[in-house]
Formats: sequence, C-alpha cells, structure tokens
Amino acid sequence: MKFYDCTTAPSPRRVRIFLAEKGITVPTVQVDLRNNEQLTPEFRAINPYATVPSLDLDDGTRINDAIGICVYFEAIHPQPPLMGGSAEEKALVTAWQREVERNGFYAVMEAFRNSTPGLKGRALPGPHDYEQIPALAERGRLRVAHFFEQMHARLGQSEFVAGAGYTIADITALVTIDFAARARLPIPETCGHLRRWHSRISARPSAKA
Amino acid sequence: MKFYDCTTAPSPRRVRIFLAEKGITVPTVQVDLRNNEQLTPEFRAINPYATVPSLDLDDGTRINDAIGICVYFEAIHPQPPLMGGSAEEKALVTAWQREVERNGFYAVMEAFRNSTPGLKGRALPGPHDYEQIPALAERGRLRVAHFFEQMHARLGQSEFVAGAGYTIADITALVTIDFAARARLPIPETCGHLRRWHSRISARPSAKA
Repeated sequence: MKFYDCTTAPSPRRVRIFLAEKGITVPTVQVDLRNNEQLTPEFRAINPYATVPSLDLDDGTRINDAIGICVYFEAIHPQPPLMGGSAEEKALVTAWQREVERNGFYAVMEAFRNSTPGLKGRALPGPHDYEQIPALAERGRLRVAHFFEQMHARLGQSEFVAGAGYTIADITALVTIDFAARARLPIPETCGHLRRWHSRISARPSAKA
Repeated sequence: MKFYDCTTAPSPRRVRIFLAEKGITVPTVQVDLRNNEQLTPEFRAINPYATVPSLDLDDGTRINDAIGICVYFEAIHPQPPLMGGSAEEKALVTAWQREVERNGFYAVMEAFRNSTPGLKGRALPGPHDYEQIPALAERGRLRVAHFFEQMHARLGQSEFVAGAGYTIADITALVTIDFAARARLPIPETCGHLRRWHSRISARPSAKA
C-alpha cells in the first residue's frame, strides 16, 4: 500500500486525520505541489487527474479521492466508526460531510485559488488550467461567511457536526476552517459555538496530522 | 417516510433512478422549484437549506442530500448493490461518483445557473442569493467539454463508470449528461464511447424516473 500525500495541502490532510483517529499507519510518499510535481508525467502516470491524495493498494487498485480512500479504510478497519453505524447515522454523516464540503471547503477553495498570485492560471486543481476569476474569489469569501454562520447555528444544537459523535464530517469541517484561516478568513468572534467546537476538535491528537 | 422531490430538477432525479433500480416506492411530495416553493417558510421548516431532495423518516430524522438519501436506502435495502460490494469496490464507486459530480455535475450547474435569465440572482441553489458571474458560465462550458473527454476515455476502458457493474456513479453521470443537454451542451460526436454508454444506460427502465 502507498499513500500519496502533501503535508501542506488540505485534501490529503482529511485522510491523515482519518487514519490518525483509527490508529493506522500507511507508507507515504510526499508529492511537492509547490513545484507542480503533480503535473509531471511521472505523477500523472499514477493519477491522471493530477491531484493528491491518491492511494495505491497492493492488488494495483488506485483510489484518487480523499473520501474514497476514507471509505476504503472504514470498510477494512471499522473501529472506531467515523462514517456512522446505523443506516440513519450513515446517511446523516454522508449528508453533513457533503454539506460542509459544498458550502465550506469548496467556498474556501474558490476564495483562495481565485486570488492567490502563485495560483494564477491554476484556479482549479487537476489537469486543466483555468484562469482566476476575481468575482469568484469575492463570492467565495461571502460564501465562507455564510458557512461560518451555518456551522455556528448547527453547533449550538449539536455536539458534533453530524450529531452526538465525532465523524468524518468534523474532519472536513476542521480542515476547511484551518484552510480558511490560511486564506485570511478566520472564524468571526460572533460564532462562539463554532469557535468552541474548533478548540475542542483541534485539541484531539489527530488534529496534528 | 416522505420524499420531497421536483420532477424537473436533476438532483432529486438521482434518487428517483436509484430507487427505481432497487424497486422501491416511497410516498412523494412535489416541491415547485419554478415558483420558488423551496424558499417559502413552510418548506424551509422542512429543509432550512432550501434544496431538494429531502427525505423524512418515520422517527423524525431528515436527510437533506441526494447521496445521503441513497446511502440510507443502500443500507436498508442492499439488493441490488449500487455502491459497491468489497472495500475496494465501495472506495472506487465513491471516488468515481465524486469525480463525475465535481467535474461534470457542478460544471453543468456553473454553466447553466450563471447564464439562464430566469436564475438571475440565484446562481447557486440554497438559502442565499448570489449574482450570476458570466465568466463562470463560460468556464463551466469549458469544464463540461473536458468532462465529456474524460468520460469518453474512461468508457473506452471500462463498461460502466466505476468498473464492471452499474452503480450510483452511472446514475450521477446520466443525470449530468441529460442536464447538460438541457443546457445545450450535448455530447460531442467525437466522444463515441460516451455516446454508446449513454444510449445503453438510457435504455434501462430506471432512466425514465
């Protein structure tokens, strides 16, 4: 098994935290995104979509998606469950993970990738070059503000993002919020429930991953 | 159980096809998106995020996401499996479903919602109003062209999107392509593998859902 990672990138961090929560260690290769190693012919022979994370299994199977990789480890190493136990829980964890990703993760990516000088011409990850759209950076910032409000309201009613237990929805939310902070979009003072949740989740040993 | 649907919208169609493949019938309520019924206080009491589909379970649980709803039905009604059997299959189906959604479904949505006159001020679904960005409509059309090429290449190597069997990744791809056609983005003549796959999948009874 081989895990293609990049310590500074948010997507593979989701998998690193997931593995840390399960106590799993996987042989890991660093891909140097800052120098566009993901766009080299060598890496595109591994993942034609030129993104990390990617996971190679011993039978030759390749999984080129953070959540796909987590689904694999949840199936072969179910304890502790991070994607829900009952049918209802599985559904709610899936729905919340996706809600956080759609409204938070992708919004931060819009804000960050459409305004960072070093990402000029690289407004989306992957094999194709897309120009930055300044209006999209602005919309991303507005969406992130709405996301913070949504999470503040949710975490005023629920101990964790998807309900009573820590799940992959919390992992996506943590990675999103730390990514937002790097993009100079910190949690507002007014979002106390979200700030308290963030302190609590950041204190778990897995958050260092 | 109650399913909140809209027959003309692509997201709930994913669930309708999934249910048809499993032979499940669920009591259904139509939400009139054309007249913004999803934004009324009555519907927002059901789903505060003002989107369809949504599923009410008898114990009061609400699932406000198409894939979350499919996860629920896969768990309570596993046959035929539409999300993979082994750990490897589950991971690959998840990864491909997400790849199609990211590169295809969201790209068509970008192209469509940022250019359709009737969606002025409503460039994203959900409770918040966002102005259309013409450059984003243009980028969406370019991304859809890349998506068609990617799927053509994939379906030249694989019978179905995620491998040897029909799965939810095919459902997302079918709904994406039919949505693209409505947005006047038909599959190009040069994408023969994708066109043949589309004819084959469209001939399944579930495609009428």
